[in-house]
Amino acid sequence: MRRKKYLDERLDACGNVNLGWLVDYAAEQRGETQQRTLDVREIFGNDNPVHLEVGCGKGGFAVEAARRNPDINFIAVEMARNVIVSAMELAVKENLPNLKFLMGKAEYLEKFFPENSVERIYLNFSCPYPKETYKKHRLTHPVFLEIYKHILIPGGEIHQKTDNMKLFEFSIENLSQCGFKLKNVSLDLHNSGFEGNIVTEYEKRFSEQGFPIYRLEAVNPTK
Amino acid sequence: MRRKKYLDERLDACGNVNLGWLVDYAAEQRGETQQRTLDVREIFGNDNPVHLEVGCGKGGFAVEAARRNPDINFIAVEMARNVIVSAMELAVKENLPNLKFLMGKAEYLEKFFPENSVERIYLNFSCPYPKETYKKHRLTHPVFLEIYKHILIPGGEIHQKTDNMKLFEFSIENLSQCGFKLKNVSLDLHNSGFEGNIVTEYEKRFSEQGFPIYRLEAVNPTK
Repeated sequence: MRRKKYLDERLDACGNVNLGWLVDYAAEQRGETQQRTLDVREIFGNDNPVHLEVGCGKGGFAVEAARRNPDINFIAVEMARNVIVSAMELAVKENLPNLKFLMGKAEYLEKFFPENSVERIYLNFSCPYPKETYKKHRLTHPVFLEIYKHILIPGGEIHQKTDNMKLFEFSIENLSQCGFKLKNVSLDLHNSGFEGNIVTEYEKRFSEQGFPIYRLEAVNPTK
Repeated sequence: MRRKKYLDERLDACGNVNLGWLVDYAAEQRGETQQRTLDVREIFGNDNPVHLEVGCGKGGFAVEAARRNPDINFIAVEMARNVIVSAMELAVKENLPNLKFLMGKAEYLEKFFPENSVERIYLNFSCPYPKETYKKHRLTHPVFLEIYKHILIPGGEIHQKTDNMKLFEFSIENLSQCGFKLKNVSLDLHNSGFEGNIVTEYEKRFSEQGFPIYRLEAVNPTK
């Protein structure tokens, strides 16, 4: 209880970097309809394109991407509060006006992002959920891909990186089956000559152990 | 000259296993229009589905596939005469009525196979043509994929295996861009649990050296 209170205080201290919850879980449990559409223009005070990271962890990627691209608005989503708090605190410290955070699960994205409102989605080292029975939780399951298709603009892109071979195979198959067009596929990113890669902490660790990093870009078809 | 004569004799000795050239190159050089549509029903004397291997080499895969699947008609294509002759001789020895060979380049397939006449195309360890300037020769270049789309039935499939990472990346991208739907993608076939694999000589050699074998299936979209 003390720990939770301390976490709440830290989250509150992040001010407007913290956009709060994707969904009001208490209201949902009461069976109330969730009505919260993000007004990105109002949040950032401009019309710049929106890039979304789903599963941002401690925020290393999002912070670096926001720093390198001041003309892009970044929103990073993460369901683990005790993890995203570190990401938010890093963003506060870096004082990046173009990076905000949302807490919650990816299945709620469609409820709160308007259709055709996102230019790019990043999936970096998402949990592979290796067991067949948990495959619906993988962030490239068709259930999620349909959500991404809805909120992405036509021609918008998903950029995925993973060290997990099975997740990458699963992603290629589902993205293709759902009509996304694949490009810039790399089966060994760090030996591919790809420039501008933002290496996450996780990626650095796995790559140093000699595992290849997989990467792809998938283009949202015109609806 | 003697060697060529000897090769001609060997090719002739394969009788009706040898369907001859995909194209009459001499006639082509004279600027004559090529009119030769394969009548697969007549060739095999039945209406069984047709599977085509493009680049069959010495024929190990085609012979084994034909042996395992007597109700499928196999046609194997190879442009190198001094290589395909071994494949034909093996087929003659095995006495497989459901396997025939065509000599020539893949770009001529569209001229001689009717539209919607092929159920499946195999691409096994095709030459990767690693240099960028030769990429038009890769058998998964869009130029070839459009030919395959034309001769494949709707829902027909391309099954590809390769040990070459760059060729596999290239194939995933182009198949996806050309509208094929990918399934059963494997980035390490021999550790994937895949059953019924026909291991080619080339595949055995590379796999034993510790290289992963890549495999995919691509479904032809409905036109």
